Amino acid sequence: MLNLSFDKHPDFVVRLEHPFNAGPPPRLLNQSYITPTNLFFVRSHGDVPEVDVDSYRLEINGQVSRPLNLSLGDLKDNFEHVNVSATLQCAGNRREELMAVESIPNELEWGVDAISHASWTGVRLRDVLAEAGVGSDADSHLHVEFGGLDDVQRHNKIFHYGGSIPLSKGCSSEVILAYEMNDEPLTPVHGFPLRAIVPGYIGARSVKWLDRITVQDEPSQNYFQSRAYRLFAPHMRPETVEWEEGVMLGEMNVTSVICSHDENERIASGNVSVEGYAMAGGRRIARVDVSCDGGVTWVQAELTNEAGCWGWTLWKVNFDLKPGRCQLVVRAMDTSANTQPQDVSQVWNFKGYMNNAWHRVNIEVVDD
Amino acid sequence: MLNLSFDKHPDFVVRLEHPFNAGPPPRLLNQSYITPTNLFFVRSHGDVPEVDVDSYRLEINGQVSRPLNLSLGDLKDNFEHVNVSATLQCAGNRREELMAVESIPNELEWGVDAISHASWTGVRLRDVLAEAGVGSDADSHLHVEFGGLDDVQRHNKIFHYGGSIPLSKGCSSEVILAYEMNDEPLTPVHGFPLRAIVPGYIGARSVKWLDRITVQDEPSQNYFQSRAYRLFAPHMRPETVEWEEGVMLGEMNVTSVICSHDENERIASGNVSVEGYAMAGGRRIARVDVSCDGGVTWVQAELTNEAGCWGWTLWKVNFDLKPGRCQLVVRAMDTSANTQPQDVSQVWNFKGYMNNAWHRVNIEVVDD
Repeated sequence: MLNLSFDKHPDFVVRLEHPFNAGPPPRLLNQSYITPTNLFFVRSHGDVPEVDVDSYRLEINGQVSRPLNLSLGDLKDNFEHVNVSATLQCAGNRREELMAVESIPNELEWGVDAISHASWTGVRLRDVLAEAGVGSDADSHLHVEFGGLDDVQRHNKIFHYGGSIPLSKGCSSEVILAYEMNDEPLTPVHGFPLRAIVPGYIGARSVKWLDRITVQDEPSQNYFQSRAYRLFAPHMRPETVEWEEGVMLGEMNVTSVICSHDENERIASGNVSVEGYAMAGGRRIARVDVSCDGGVTWVQAELTNEAGCWGWTLWKVNFDLKPGRCQLVVRAMDTSANTQPQDVSQVWNFKGYMNNAWHRVNIEVVDD
Repeated sequence: MLNLSFDKHPDFVVRLEHPFNAGPPPRLLNQSYITPTNLFFVRSHGDVPEVDVDSYRLEINGQVSRPLNLSLGDLKDNFEHVNVSATLQCAGNRREELMAVESIPNELEWGVDAISHASWTGVRLRDVLAEAGVGSDADSHLHVEFGGLDDVQRHNKIFHYGGSIPLSKGCSSEVILAYEMNDEPLTPVHGFPLRAIVPGYIGARSVKWLDRITVQDEPSQNYFQSRAYRLFAPHMRPETVEWEEGVMLGEMNVTSVICSHDENERIASGNVSVEGYAMAGGRRIARVDVSCDGGVTWVQAELTNEAGCWGWTLWKVNFDLKPGRCQLVVRAMDTSANTQPQDVSQVWNFKGYMNNAWHRVNIEVVDD
């Protein structure tokens, strides 16, 4: 394991279980469209591996006609360099609100901070797959498994982290093997020397410390694909569940969050700017509505950037607030008219994934 | 105008305004995965044009390097024939429920029947565009406009129906120019001799009687793209709205519907099969939950077919019902964990589009 000089920002909010699970305070999240690397949220499932770049190799195998074994130099020298601006979000983002409905043991209590945006540079996965003899076939039923160098431990077994995406997604132009983040080499906690970037999908599929790509008939059998990161109905409980009946997560749902204010914050009355982010997986945000009276009336927020479908959308709105308690609420709609659920209890699930309920922040407005 | 021998099924439910706006009774909708052609819902915006197939030409123009002018024979002889199994749904499906919240004048009062599924045969749009010199570029910002031969009249102007889709969608393998529906030539009401089929998008973009394809910088300026088929927030009203601020509809949201029972139906107590359809635009249905107590408790429905992402998913569930009033409710989730809104008033909009609230049917269970 690496003796880490983790470039941690003093403002990081460290989550339970592991020093490398951390996110920035919500207030810093939407200060810039691109999250500075030292503020980018970190979610790792084991320790950060120490990788010797000279001996590092990426293996491409499985259902390929030409297996490949590439150094980092081979990747950079033989494939077109591309840049993708993409937001990563952990499937557990906003679990804290679910935990307030009913306890969710043994999971990280993420607030709204398990999300960040970066500019990623690398090579297209489909170009590498093409070199291995795998064609772009949108109708394919094959899957692409990513394997990482990190050792993880679950249920008394030690194994490498892994996950997979459908080949059809893997052949999309936005999926890359990234060696740079915000124009600098990846830092150790973000996957040095190479990670998959799968825009629109839960962060768990953007496998870090990537050293193996396998083309195969089925989704990955790795614990983090076959058992974790599955979504169950609100009435299901782990004691009685059939694990394979959970929905294997991939694309993300539509969500929006207030970043500018904390729960129970006291603010001065008058003109108040309420701000935050919205995100819709592979679709665009069409509209963000904000309420300052708990959802009775709504105003449409200004979208302060023109995001592609792989990045978050930042938004803001001004209210003239009178003294008293008030509840700020945000809800977004994507371009397919999908919306967020009003009530967090409707999306509660025992693993605490994919909470996209209306985001509510109660504040106290006092005389200036 | 054609002197029509419209092959109308006696069970068709004809909607206001026009004899060619009709759908089958809900109970017939999910009797088979493929809707028989004579039951397939019809939504036209003008009269059905009479097309002489010998003189018919499809023109491909605009930002193309080789404009084309093709007969139906040219299309069939020069491009690969492909088959796509796809559900079409009108953006106004389920408007009836929105109208119960607040009136929506001058729009068709669709029940749950503005949806059907067919097997479509034709040629890929992208193959035709490639012949015209237009490449498949997923990052393109161009649009593909479809023009129809039908005359429509709105605001005292007569013009041809039209609409558009992004070129990136147009270059997807599922978008075709269809000349057959369920293995027979298109019937006049369904667009003979040629129509666009845009799976995953609102039916309005699957332009019938297609005679022109234009590649252009902007979405179509046709009334049915630039003004109609836009989605506004619940608090907006037509008198005060900026029309260009509405969301231009394309992809469809996640929805589900009970087909097996009518509102206020009396049924015998005991074992009851509740059935219906679900649909999620270009995503798959992950789960369908059904309640027989107004949403207090839920059971997971059986998905009775393995649909691709372009077709609907049929579902069924059995309840043992006791005498009394009860409310059946269905809600679906797609593979991105998007869900349906609980309350129809949250998605009310003055044009009455994209209602995907939980579907509720009140029935009376009586002693057998």
